Amino acid sequence: MKKSLGARTFVLPTPAWVVGTYDKQGKPNLMTAAWGGICCSKPPCIGISLRKATYTYSNLMERKAFTVNVPSENHVKAVDFFGIVTGRDVDKFAAAGLTPIRSDVVDAPYVKEFPLVLECKVIHTNEIGLHTHFVGEILDVKADESVLGTEGFPNVEKVKPIIYCPDVRTYHAVGKYLGQAFSIGKNM
Amino acid sequence: MKKSLGARTFVLPTPAWVVGTYDKQGKPNLMTAAWGGICCSKPPCIGISLRKATYTYSNLMERKAFTVNVPSENHVKAVDFFGIVTGRDVDKFAAAGLTPIRSDVVDAPYVKEFPLVLECKVIHTNEIGLHTHFVGEILDVKADESVLGTEGFPNVEKVKPIIYCPDVRTYHAVGKYLGQAFSIGKNM
Repeated sequence: MKKSLGARTFVLPTPAWVVGTYDKQGKPNLMTAAWGGICCSKPPCIGISLRKATYTYSNLMERKAFTVNVPSENHVKAVDFFGIVTGRDVDKFAAAGLTPIRSDVVDAPYVKEFPLVLECKVIHTNEIGLHTHFVGEILDVKADESVLGTEGFPNVEKVKPIIYCPDVRTYHAVGKYLGQAFSIGKNM
Repeated sequence: MKKSLGARTFVLPTPAWVVGTYDKQGKPNLMTAAWGGICCSKPPCIGISLRKATYTYSNLMERKAFTVNVPSENHVKAVDFFGIVTGRDVDKFAAAGLTPIRSDVVDAPYVKEFPLVLECKVIHTNEIGLHTHFVGEILDVKADESVLGTEGFPNVEKVKPIIYCPDVRTYHAVGKYLGQAFSIGKNM
């Protein structure tokens, strides 16, 4: 018998990503986001949900572009910081000692020190409620050479992405390998 | 200098969730989904993207309801199986030895043996491209008592959810605790 926890946004895992945008004056900004996920394969798209009150929301409406920056475990303090303060008051890049790089494909900055970044152009804006769901077409994915695995793709054990647990508000690492997809279930 | 990997759906982490639906005849079905994420806090909503070719897509259009079932590590073979075969040909619950439970709040079944489930009513359907993005309002979250932590919320180390890595197609566990959110970044 399962226990009812009510209508709430509790699910596991959620990501701890950092969204990069420019404001109207060209100042780069960062914001932590856990409400997001891939939402289409062709064209490749990722969705990110934001409250209208955020600085990043205004930047996105203005610039129609953003980056999704995947931090490593060792950036967890900065990731948390980016979710606490607002870009209206603070230059978050400078405060965290990180370097903004202008994307060569979209009008948004990414974090040089983070191992994996997605560069996205907004192609849909869906009003849901408190949050607006921005669908970004992924125009390029960029990764540090140091995190690439043998197949040429980023290796999760090298990227060391961060997992966020809603409500209990904790960050966790990715753990052990469990198996190969489209393979281990063939002999069910 | 980052290496360009091209326009693709590569990001970390993505979830390995199992979507539960009924078909027109009332047969319960399951499908593995990694393209999804929370997309609104009020009302609480989760988005799941599906190709029109899937059986679950037809079920969702018919029933306007689904469950998101969060599997544990020990279900990883079944999770992979649910992404390989189609419910048109197979009774996936029976094949995997799992038990469908009719939700008491939406017209969809959930997996008794999985530790955490979200019961959702479709409130938006957004066409993006190959995938349709279904926005489900979360009407209830249910969890096994055995995975609840001291705060009354499911504990990630007890739920043991599965992480999926696109392109390299691997499953991973959740690892070590990294810190408390809205706390460790206060003194940046």
